[in-house]
Amino acid sequence: MEFKVNSKELEKLLSKIIPAVPTRTPMPILENFLFEVKDGQLTIYATDLEISLKSSLNIVAEENIKIVVPARLLNDVVRSLKDTTIHFKLAANKKINIVTDMGKYTISYLDADEFPEIPSVEADKSAKDINEVIINGIELRHAFDKCAFAMSKEEMRPAMMGTLFEFTDDGLRLVTTDGHRLVNMLKKNIKAAFNQQYVVPERAVSVLSKILDEKDVKIHLTKSYVSFKLNDIELITRLIAQKYPDYASVIPLENEFQMKVNTKEIHDSIKRMMLFSTSSTRRVKFSIKKDALEISAEDLDIGASGEEKVVCEYEGDDLEIGFNSAYVNDVLSHLGTEEDIIFKLHSPTKAVVIEPVQKKENLDLMMLLMPVRLNT
Amino acid sequence: MEFKVNSKELEKLLSKIIPAVPTRTPMPILENFLFEVKDGQLTIYATDLEISLKSSLNIVAEENIKIVVPARLLNDVVRSLKDTTIHFKLAANKKINIVTDMGKYTISYLDADEFPEIPSVEADKSAKDINEVIINGIELRHAFDKCAFAMSKEEMRPAMMGTLFEFTDDGLRLVTTDGHRLVNMLKKNIKAAFNQQYVVPERAVSVLSKILDEKDVKIHLTKSYVSFKLNDIELITRLIAQKYPDYASVIPLENEFQMKVNTKEIHDSIKRMMLFSTSSTRRVKFSIKKDALEISAEDLDIGASGEEKVVCEYEGDDLEIGFNSAYVNDVLSHLGTEEDIIFKLHSPTKAVVIEPVQKKENLDLMMLLMPVRLNT
Repeated sequence: MEFKVNSKELEKLLSKIIPAVPTRTPMPILENFLFEVKDGQLTIYATDLEISLKSSLNIVAEENIKIVVPARLLNDVVRSLKDTTIHFKLAANKKINIVTDMGKYTISYLDADEFPEIPSVEADKSAKDINEVIINGIELRHAFDKCAFAMSKEEMRPAMMGTLFEFTDDGLRLVTTDGHRLVNMLKKNIKAAFNQQYVVPERAVSVLSKILDEKDVKIHLTKSYVSFKLNDIELITRLIAQKYPDYASVIPLENEFQMKVNTKEIHDSIKRMMLFSTSSTRRVKFSIKKDALEISAEDLDIGASGEEKVVCEYEGDDLEIGFNSAYVNDVLSHLGTEEDIIFKLHSPTKAVVIEPVQKKENLDLMMLLMPVRLNT
Repeated sequence: MEFKVNSKELEKLLSKIIPAVPTRTPMPILENFLFEVKDGQLTIYATDLEISLKSSLNIVAEENIKIVVPARLLNDVVRSLKDTTIHFKLAANKKINIVTDMGKYTISYLDADEFPEIPSVEADKSAKDINEVIINGIELRHAFDKCAFAMSKEEMRPAMMGTLFEFTDDGLRLVTTDGHRLVNMLKKNIKAAFNQQYVVPERAVSVLSKILDEKDVKIHLTKSYVSFKLNDIELITRLIAQKYPDYASVIPLENEFQMKVNTKEIHDSIKRMMLFSTSSTRRVKFSIKKDALEISAEDLDIGASGEEKVVCEYEGDDLEIGFNSAYVNDVLSHLGTEEDIIFKLHSPTKAVVIEPVQKKENLDLMMLLMPVRLNT
């Protein structure tokens, strides 16, 4: 039993699949690829039981083969080869010989039945119906770029460890939050024939961010799974089986005081103030008066402090409000492409809404920051 | 007491000095800069007690000041500022105010007498005479690039944790070794008026590699210290107070079998074989016959193996010899600019000499590799 494949084509294929291989896992079998040769097509699978990736390649093969091979070793070997033909030959004792014009390599394989089952949306028996939507890859990646950072890392509330995909009549809404900050974006040009909420886990979002390109992505959704079909690769992930928190209830509507600032100026200032904020609280203080913002921080541990004035437009009441500077920095980093932003404020204890001044045609974007207490 | 300095000039100065600030130290005082303002000149010092760096800048100052300030905080703050004038003002309670047109920052300082004494070659009382030599900065950096990797990391034999500078009638010889591999280079164009051995510690070599440029370096040597004076910065280091091992006695003279190989080809092959060598031994085997080199490795833990043929020219006896593949890789990485290299061999237990085929006019370069046993 044998098959042949070009080294550079295989390298490209493996590099797309390897992101699904877990780096540390109590199940060593997951550190392998499943190789399936069927009717002249090589399909490679990898999974960490949450997400799975698969991709195929036409090759020269006489027979059908299904084996499990060590993912990182094979990936490293193939990457280190020149452009050449690789000849895979099954040998005795569960060995596979890999022969090129440079040399001969032997690795151990396992039987295919030791590999966990790869879920497929089509085979999801809990699925009454499958919803479908098509999104441009770059557009989806840009959306993830803006919102992925705010997903929670705490396992207490599993739904918040994912990104909410909410299909509505107005478009696709993406929401992420960890309770300290929240991103809420509405992509008005992405319309689906259904209204439904899905929570996609963090790892699927992070792997997708690496492999999305300018091609369209065909998305199939069931109650339990979502599949993202790219040009030449498919990612399938379990959905988080928990209701997403009622994000709308935490977004304040009556924040009447608006402060307009230049994004880069306030961000540069925050980055400096982070150097002076106590490492345990990371607290910075915003002191806001008519057309005047002063940002200050103090690190009592090392006896250092800083204060800066930032140009702003503000007509509201005088206000002193505290934030975790790392969270402000995160929000500003992800609004970095905006020229000016608006802080919508109400009081030192009320969530603050941050929005770009320049509205985009197909995008409503808002971020929310919870304040921290100043008098502790 | 106050002084003014341009932010970008200070940033440049601090970036040159900060490499001497230790990252982890049981002596927190070493995590500071010593700032000395004297007669309109700001001199900044940092030391880890082994190496010291100092550099100066002309500034606007009315008085003389000598204080100790937190190195990383100040470096981070200055780096984050735009091009502006920084106004340093000493305040009450050992605070220093740093005022720019953007804001005001306050940090604590310590008195200068808390900072350890910075050694100077001139003040070295053990120095009977001071030797001087001038070396071009780029030339010295290139020499370090080739030999620094082979310095030992084991504290058992302190001399091997440095680079031997041996000034001879033939030129400057640099030697590094950790007992497994050795680099021996003779820079014939660097002549000094004295014949002497000095052992420069690893940290001095690594910091110098970062700051050397095309300018000449004035080197002053005493029994205990060496100072490297660059254009605008001076590095002073203790010398390792131990005799360097007799490197000449380990270099075999009677290795009569010569194998010529292309450097890139054998290096690529070694990189692949590293993937198949057992992680505990990293052993690869060279099987050498007339004009034929086969490199092989085996990882018994994971049941993988590899073998490759590499084109070579060889007329000697058939030979099988083992190496630590990581050490072969290191040596080949540092010979990577050479088109072809020669392995000079004698037997499976004798050190192997590796030299470039193309001799350079002013440089004799050889590397040496100890073999490992094959039958264990």
